Amino acid sequence: MPLPRVTVWNEYRHELQNPQVREIYPDGIHSTLAAALRAAGLEVATATLDEPEHGLSAERLAQTDVLVWWGHIAHQEVSDAVADRVQARVLEGMGLVVLHSGHFSKIFRRLMGTGCDLKWREGGDRERLWVVAPGHPIAQGLGEYIELEREEMYGEPFDVPPPETLVFVSWFSGGEVFRSGGCYTRGHGRIFYFRPGHETLPTYHHPQIQQVIVNAVRWAAPTPGAARAFGNRLPLEEIRPSE
Amino acid sequence: MPLPRVTVWNEYRHELQNPQVREIYPDGIHSTLAAALRAAGLEVATATLDEPEHGLSAERLAQTDVLVWWGHIAHQEVSDAVADRVQARVLEGMGLVVLHSGHFSKIFRRLMGTGCDLKWREGGDRERLWVVAPGHPIAQGLGEYIELEREEMYGEPFDVPPPETLVFVSWFSGGEVFRSGGCYTRGHGRIFYFRPGHETLPTYHHPQIQQVIVNAVRWAAPTPGAARAFGNRLPLEEIRPSE
Amino acid sequence: MPLPRVTVWNEYRHELQNPQVREIYPDGIHSTLAAALRAAGLEVATATLDEPEHGLSAERLAQTDVLVWWGHIAHQEVSDAVADRVQARVLEGMGLVVLHSGHFSKIFRRLMGTGCDLKWREGGDRERLWVVAPGHPIAQGLGEYIELEREEMYGEPFDVPPPETLVFVSWFSGGEVFRSGGCYTRGHGRIFYFRPGHETLPTYHHPQIQQVIVNAVRWAAPTPGAARAFGNRLPLEEIRPSE
Amino acid sequence: MPLPRVTVWNEYRHELQNPQVREIYPDGIHSTLAAALRAAGLEVATATLDEPEHGLSAERLAQTDVLVWWGHIAHQEVSDAVADRVQARVLEGMGLVVLHSGHFSKIFRRLMGTGCDLKWREGGDRERLWVVAPGHPIAQGLGEYIELEREEMYGEPFDVPPPETLVFVSWFSGGEVFRSGGCYTRGHGRIFYFRPGHETLPTYHHPQIQQVIVNAVRWAAPTPGAARAFGNRLPLEEIRPSE
Repeated sequence: MPLPRVTVWNEYRHELQNPQVREIYPDGIHSTLAAALRAAGLEVATATLDEPEHGLSAERLAQTDVLVWWGHIAHQEVSDAVADRVQARVLEGMGLVVLHSGHFSKIFRRLMGTGCDLKWREGGDRERLWVVAPGHPIAQGLGEYIELEREEMYGEPFDVPPPETLVFVSWFSGGEVFRSGGCYTRGHGRIFYFRPGHETLPTYHHPQIQQVIVNAVRWAAPTPGAARAFGNRLPLEEIRPSE
Repeated sequence: MPLPRVTVWNEYRHELQNPQVREIYPDGIHSTLAAALRAAGLEVATATLDEPEHGLSAERLAQTDVLVWWGHIAHQEVSDAVADRVQARVLEGMGLVVLHSGHFSKIFRRLMGTGCDLKWREGGDRERLWVVAPGHPIAQGLGEYIELEREEMYGEPFDVPPPETLVFVSWFSGGEVFRSGGCYTRGHGRIFYFRPGHETLPTYHHPQIQQVIVNAVRWAAPTPGAARAFGNRLPLEEIRPSE
Repeated sequence: MPLPRVTVWNEYRHELQNPQVREIYPDGIHSTLAAALRAAGLEVATATLDEPEHGLSAERLAQTDVLVWWGHIAHQEVSDAVADRVQARVLEGMGLVVLHSGHFSKIFRRLMGTGCDLKWREGGDRERLWVVAPGHPIAQGLGEYIELEREEMYGEPFDVPPPETLVFVSWFSGGEVFRSGGCYTRGHGRIFYFRPGHETLPTYHHPQIQQVIVNAVRWAAPTPGAARAFGNRLPLEEIRPSE
Repeated sequence: MPLPRVTVWNEYRHELQNPQVREIYPDGIHSTLAAALRAAGLEVATATLDEPEHGLSAERLAQTDVLVWWGHIAHQEVSDAVADRVQARVLEGMGLVVLHSGHFSKIFRRLMGTGCDLKWREGGDRERLWVVAPGHPIAQGLGEYIELEREEMYGEPFDVPPPETLVFVSWFSGGEVFRSGGCYTRGHGRIFYFRPGHETLPTYHHPQIQQVIVNAVRWAAPTPGAARAFGNRLPLEEIRPSE
């Protein structure tokens, strides 16, 4: 099977506006993620909010097997037309990996059908992501948990449909827990939500966090399945009245 | 626990436009369903598309524990404002029972996040709804299957997220199958999709079909759970730097 | 619907052997749980390991709608015959609520098909059980979490099949998390596993823990569903060769 | 990732006793399946009931990534020791593909925790396996359904836990339906049950049935996940009394 073609989408505003973020991600979160995915042998493009069509033209999406999504302060600036297009591609089979504050993105909320709200706290909890599905492909190569010295806290309840598979549960030093890695199917597409990644912290430089994102991209890559065939149909059997 | 207060919503167009449908449901599908639910001891109101706010004012929804939905030819006439209001109430805990062609309703598609398409054929297949979760509350009081002499066919794939619980699978004489009864959770709300009910056929007069709808309403009725509490939070534990 | 008839089963060894446990549960854990269930209006019997047939005769089980199970140091003394009988009754529809160290009981391991192992630590972590399915009947009447000043720690991975519904996730002060409340279906029967309840601590006197167990018993009570009918069958349709 | 190493296990009694079966599978069902898997590039061994340790020594299992299982009339002759060993290997991560009458095998019943009973009828229904999860890896390369001119009928209810993912639903000409392809997780292992394959019919020579089995083997192959680490643990954080 050919390797999945990945597009990493980033809002790319914090990095331009906030020197603290720029110091951690000088070329943007997308560049850091793209480098990690390329190092794993994947073919990777990037796209950002302020490009034409947010970098997500029909052509670009047609050539994308898995889309990685990071957004935070400008969810409402993503046009409905592009959100429609991304949703349609997921239903056709494109994988989608939604990161951190992307929980509130237009595309994730649409695909979930819920508000996707949660509790949160900045300032630096310690986070420990426990693997609760140790045989799952997205946990490949990990130990029992990933520890992050400092991260933003997200707390339950997380207003999403129950994940079809739950891979990670986070522990926070301030006393909360969170379902940090959940798998979903929508149409032919596979979706993975992964919690960590606050912009003021170097989370996406962490090798195990990168490993999870690489694993998730591989897991979410489409497999050529049955056609999405709907509509009016003739019977396959002769229909007779019952006796 | 007090009995759930039900609102049966019906598009109520076919009955007014088509004498064949009117003959089967002279006061509308909503009246037939309301009578069946009242006979089971429930408190029932009705609402229809052409009432002000489609009969679904904020007051009406606030007094509704479970909403039953039938629509077909006018899904797009349901205003976004009312769809928003219904979705918000489901997330707060209101149950939702979506019937037959309601699979394409604005509210169901929003809550599912998918296209909700399927295969279909009018003209009268025989349908046999097999119970695949015989211990489930929605199957209460049924035999091994429900047989409908004539129904519209719906065929797989049904473009919805995988049901959290699958209760019925239909067999059709023309050679198709369909996941005909599926349970979902969205926010605090419980949702049940139930397939049968083509408007030109007397399906909603069938005692076992009525039984399923009564069961589904009882199952979907909200239980007073934890508050839906989100937002910024102080820590519950003192956060100390790790050693 | 008549109220469910409950049998609380307890190994009842720690209380007889260990004065510390006896002080907390002078008449046994089963008596404390039975009193809480009776206070909620339920009809409750108790049974213990050292009674004939462990108190679980065929007659007793036939009159039990929901069985609550606590065991720890004598799982292997439960006879295979009684384990068979309990398993058969669950498949017929009897509810089962498995508490704390019951994760290693013969009956739970059989119904799960896995080893049911986990990490653990005695000595008194603080535990906070977060509600992750706030609209679920088992969470009825709770706040956002239940806090237990001291409990034994159980940590992930918990070697069980993924719960069909996950209701609670625990946070422990020592740094671990645990899926503390999970729902399962086996045959017609509903099963709930609930984590807390170390014998040297007064957990089962906690009003919210009692509330969860009452809720779980109500949720697990059988609904009269379709017959469990298997075996050789004549066709329901005339089978004709395809053209 | 290296290709999974497969062992195809067959009871191998019908073929030796029944000339009709032998004509269809002259070297046994296992040889037909092994040839199909080898043609897909996999490394395949076979094992049968009447070999020492049923061909499933500890060494053989240690070298098996995915075990394919076909049995029917001699489930009880499989020793408990070998069933224990297979179960332990599945929990460690070995994939398991259970075929047709293997639903009643000792190993499948243990892993499911239920009776695994169903309805059945020999004599030749037409079967149409509809793909209900068209984006799933196990449906890769298929059309909308697989049609089998003649097969034994299996009917609902199928007494198994609800599949974590349901891939196929069968339609039978005699009027029944069946959940024909279901995915499960037990420990680190992935399990797929696939319905077709009555021994008197050439089902395993059908290219699309072979395709499903190849797909299932690839899907079930283990991914190196986190260690299965259980037992007593020291805290990861300093535990302090709450204020």
